[in-house]
Amino acid sequence: MEHSSDMSVGRIPIVGVQPSLEEGRWPAKAVVGEAVPITATIFREGHDAEGATVVVTVPGGVEQIIPMPLDDFGNSRYQASFVPQHEGPHLFRVEAWSNPYATWAHAAELKVTAGVDVQLMLDEGVEVLTRAIAEVKRPAASQKLLKSAVSALSDPKLAPDARLAPAVSDAVKDVLTAAPLRDWVTTSNTYPLLVERERALASAWYEIFPRSEGARQNKRTGAWASGTFTTASKRLPGIAAMGFDVVYLTPIHPIGTTHRKGRNNSLTCEPGDPGSPYAIGAAEGGHDAIHPDLGTMRTFKNFVKKARENNLEVALDLALQCSPDHPWVTDHPEWFTTQLDGTIAYAENPPKKYQDIYPLNFDNDPQGISQAVRDVLQVWIDAGVTLFRVDNPHTKPLTFWEWLLADIAKDHPDVIFLSEAFTRPAMMHTLAKIGFHQSYTYFTWRQNAEEMAEYLEELTGESSFYMRPNFWPTTHDILTPDMQRGGAPMFKMRAVLAATASPSYGIYTGYEFVENVPRPGVEEQIDNEKYEYKPRDWSRADDYGIETLLTTLNAQRAAHPALRRLRGLHVHKTSNPNILCFSRYVAAADSPTGKADAVITVVSFDTDVVHDAVVTFDMAAIGLTGEDTITVDDALTGATYTWGREFYVRLDPAVTTAHVAGVR
Amino acid sequence: MEHSSDMSVGRIPIVGVQPSLEEGRWPAKAVVGEAVPITATIFREGHDAEGATVVVTVPGGVEQIIPMPLDDFGNSRYQASFVPQHEGPHLFRVEAWSNPYATWAHAAELKVTAGVDVQLMLDEGVEVLTRAIAEVKRPAASQKLLKSAVSALSDPKLAPDARLAPAVSDAVKDVLTAAPLRDWVTTSNTYPLLVERERALASAWYEIFPRSEGARQNKRTGAWASGTFTTASKRLPGIAAMGFDVVYLTPIHPIGTTHRKGRNNSLTCEPGDPGSPYAIGAAEGGHDAIHPDLGTMRTFKNFVKKARENNLEVALDLALQCSPDHPWVTDHPEWFTTQLDGTIAYAENPPKKYQDIYPLNFDNDPQGISQAVRDVLQVWIDAGVTLFRVDNPHTKPLTFWEWLLADIAKDHPDVIFLSEAFTRPAMMHTLAKIGFHQSYTYFTWRQNAEEMAEYLEELTGESSFYMRPNFWPTTHDILTPDMQRGGAPMFKMRAVLAATASPSYGIYTGYEFVENVPRPGVEEQIDNEKYEYKPRDWSRADDYGIETLLTTLNAQRAAHPALRRLRGLHVHKTSNPNILCFSRYVAAADSPTGKADAVITVVSFDTDVVHDAVVTFDMAAIGLTGEDTITVDDALTGATYTWGREFYVRLDPAVTTAHVAGVR
Repeated sequence: MEHSSDMSVGRIPIVGVQPSLEEGRWPAKAVVGEAVPITATIFREGHDAEGATVVVTVPGGVEQIIPMPLDDFGNSRYQASFVPQHEGPHLFRVEAWSNPYATWAHAAELKVTAGVDVQLMLDEGVEVLTRAIAEVKRPAASQKLLKSAVSALSDPKLAPDARLAPAVSDAVKDVLTAAPLRDWVTTSNTYPLLVERERALASAWYEIFPRSEGARQNKRTGAWASGTFTTASKRLPGIAAMGFDVVYLTPIHPIGTTHRKGRNNSLTCEPGDPGSPYAIGAAEGGHDAIHPDLGTMRTFKNFVKKARENNLEVALDLALQCSPDHPWVTDHPEWFTTQLDGTIAYAENPPKKYQDIYPLNFDNDPQGISQAVRDVLQVWIDAGVTLFRVDNPHTKPLTFWEWLLADIAKDHPDVIFLSEAFTRPAMMHTLAKIGFHQSYTYFTWRQNAEEMAEYLEELTGESSFYMRPNFWPTTHDILTPDMQRGGAPMFKMRAVLAATASPSYGIYTGYEFVENVPRPGVEEQIDNEKYEYKPRDWSRADDYGIETLLTTLNAQRAAHPALRRLRGLHVHKTSNPNILCFSRYVAAADSPTGKADAVITVVSFDTDVVHDAVVTFDMAAIGLTGEDTITVDDALTGATYTWGREFYVRLDPAVTTAHVAGVR
Repeated sequence: MEHSSDMSVGRIPIVGVQPSLEEGRWPAKAVVGEAVPITATIFREGHDAEGATVVVTVPGGVEQIIPMPLDDFGNSRYQASFVPQHEGPHLFRVEAWSNPYATWAHAAELKVTAGVDVQLMLDEGVEVLTRAIAEVKRPAASQKLLKSAVSALSDPKLAPDARLAPAVSDAVKDVLTAAPLRDWVTTSNTYPLLVERERALASAWYEIFPRSEGARQNKRTGAWASGTFTTASKRLPGIAAMGFDVVYLTPIHPIGTTHRKGRNNSLTCEPGDPGSPYAIGAAEGGHDAIHPDLGTMRTFKNFVKKARENNLEVALDLALQCSPDHPWVTDHPEWFTTQLDGTIAYAENPPKKYQDIYPLNFDNDPQGISQAVRDVLQVWIDAGVTLFRVDNPHTKPLTFWEWLLADIAKDHPDVIFLSEAFTRPAMMHTLAKIGFHQSYTYFTWRQNAEEMAEYLEELTGESSFYMRPNFWPTTHDILTPDMQRGGAPMFKMRAVLAATASPSYGIYTGYEFVENVPRPGVEEQIDNEKYEYKPRDWSRADDYGIETLLTTLNAQRAAHPALRRLRGLHVHKTSNPNILCFSRYVAAADSPTGKADAVITVVSFDTDVVHDAVVTFDMAAIGLTGEDTITVDDALTGATYTWGREFYVRLDPAVTTAHVAGVR
């Protein structure tokens, strides 16, 4: 943040400029086409009029001027909307100024009507408009309009009201709003804004374990043959057909054998158990290598190419931890923690130890380890990977991430990082501020309508300027009690929520089959795919209708820009505590299509029985003021409804546990 | 604000440091003896322990180190309390660090108990404590304690638990909290904190029109003889006896005759009408002159001297506006607005004009006018004035105030400015941030318990770091509907509120007589003292018991440090919407007496009839956790009560409309 020269209050005070992250230390974030509200508190002494402008410096240095009208009189809050057109680092500042025309127009309209100081007011009008013509560039037609207003003001043959009228007309006011005469221009500090590609905000992920896709068990011997990139690539058309944007692969690297975990996280590994792909590194290589069972760099690149042909980007897992067999352990023992007894420290949660994992110690050789990770990422970026899902970033120093993400962004601004940090808010928010593009969230653990409403309002509020949520109903690590218990209706409801409440969401493969049986005592699946092969019969993927549902949801997301934005969410009151209703809205001026767009989602959190409710709908939340009713098309049932300021909904789990209603 | 060198996240992240005004642009404020909570969000990767310290640089450059314990785990919020001992500009920064001793102690206690890695844990303990001894200075006794812990850890004759015990004892932990071993010390930005004298926060003002004190009317001719500084000084012992700190005089300068206002703001001035002291300036002089009727600089200085003898400081009104007869009008016409017709602009609210006043125009010659005002202030400071009540500061540029207040503070840091700005919050808050010491507030217009509770919570919250409220039940300009209607009980109740809810409050003279008749159509007194002489018979000042009440309230304020602080106010729930209960509290560590102090106020906003309520009292708000009852002494009734977590109050206007209960 650059401070204005004197750090003083300024002739026309400007305070509380937003968005500003941690006193301008980090840039606020946006994506191309996403409206960024820029706000500031601006006021002045006495009764003269002030005005405000936002100046955005786009990459390349061109300055773009945006009018900043008064938005909230009581709080002296001005607001502009900036819709970025270019990726890259932007800067913005706020300018506040005295508005001599508005000051004059206000006084002149009152005083000429009251017959007070009439000639003086007309003379002052000539003076202020003559200045406005001389001092500010504007189109010839506008200048002509101002000149004719000056002529009328100066015409003694007209009555005073008639002399004044053109100079205070809406047309003249519009001209002087577009290109105002400004005195005492005061400038705020300059704030950074980073504009990224739209997928950094809006994306639909589909997670697979590539070794499961095409894995085959020899029925006689019981031995497994791993799936490969080649067999896994056959799944890509199916994922693409549902409309996902990203296929995310759990780690594809060689897996350690020392203390390898068996099925269901057993400490005893049976022969043939493939081990957890998160125990990275073996004789065959580390984070930059490919598990031989999966294929080679050539077949991996072929997988990426096929994904691209299916309009899918490929995301890799970045899990910065090592099995005891990782090449780094012998090549760089200084990258781990060697204890006083000479052994390398395992991962632990005292007194428990995780003997299949050595955590990296970033403090002994920060430069060396950072460069090594940077080199690993380059290998995969060169192979066509454009997104990384980062496992547990909160267990590594934030200085490391800030450097790494900045260094990647310098060369590859298109590469997106998703933070998997389930921890206290300060850490999650700061990871987002220092460069992670997307974040896993507590979506999964918000299990009733009230909690979810509160959380959605939080995520779409102030933190929307830096933290972009990615909602996952399940992952290979997470199967919450409601998902264990609620069956297909619950799986459907949570998919609707995830896909329509957040611009990014993700589905872990097998969701189609309602895989909801937990390993006793933990909130994850039994026979977890982390420790074994899990091929699925995709010919039955729509047995529960979930394949169709996901396809419908992704089609809605593609059709509705409102679903691809974070701000613009509004929760509406309902009469039933089980039922949540929210709308997503983007105004015409802020929409990439140039048309306003709104979608209303209604879900029931109790998917066991029928629930109904009256929704008290706030039309203003979707930009309507005059209208008393709207016509909506429910994408889930195909029904069309007419909804008013109060409307009735009935959610029968046998039919649907949700509405996803596009507003016509 | 100085930024740390690299603007990056830092090894142990520190964000959200408070207090910070507008990104460190202006200093937060405190007074000597007032505890300043300094907070920051601090967290780190993984599970190792972090710690935090505040470093305050006091005037002169000495650095004071303050421990900053974790205050709120969920929000990763650390808090330190700094109690300034010196006036002047301070700086503070937060340091966060890795705490290797705490990391080890946590693991060692778990693992030695579980029999895991026992020898390793003991060896690591020797290492970390040996470092702590070698690397950090501390008293010899503390070092000895650590050395004996090392000896125990190293003693193979002891059982493992016994070897460990001394090293994880409370005594050793205390030593390492006071002088910790710190790795990876990370430093926040540096923030300014301005410490002023205690009266800037805590003061009791008493406002008089000096010309009224001792004014006499000739019964035969009806002509008035003005009161003088000499006659007014006779009132000082009475004001002092009530326990006030400040006597505030409305303007004492020559009053213009052109368009002078008559009684009750009449446009027609009768012979002998003294005019409004706010129409400043006449042939006899301007803002640096004394009205000849009041006396001379010599008699004024004598008034100040007598005030001092009565432990009263003198506040003057600073009303920066001029009558048409002000010497500046002829000497410096450029300091006013000359219109196109050659006339000087009157004050106006279009189409209304105020022809007795020319507003200053600060933009034509900002340097000249600023220096002139600076010179005026020096005249009065040289005469012994130590406070200024600034009339309508929000009608002058804030750049002017910021410069003026800083320039005065440089030479006279003891001089206090009270801002009389009743306007939108942004202006009121920014005036406070740029240097005003105290602010009039909306206290007067918060006329029910709910509104008042909300307002008190607002004022004692975040804005307490810059805006210090001064509560006035009435002024010469303000007589709200409840005060017009409620009679003596209402006057008493509002005095109790003002004196006990805010560290600064003020009383406009005549309050003792319940002067509550408004001029029809406006919320100020009829026969307003602004336009006429108003001598009062002070022998009857206690007819309503208000003189006694004010004396009691000021005595309570003197006895209770809790009443002289802004933070520490808590509103307690009551069962009757007319009854407000709040406590004021200062902890022993934060109290100038070294003893905790608490006062509980209960008032009824309906002073017409009897009201009762059950108060649900939050003992934690006054620092009590174990206690179920408290004994309180009511300063108003002399009664002693035992109050529990729920207690009953009955407020009978015939007896009292309030309790002011000091907690024993």
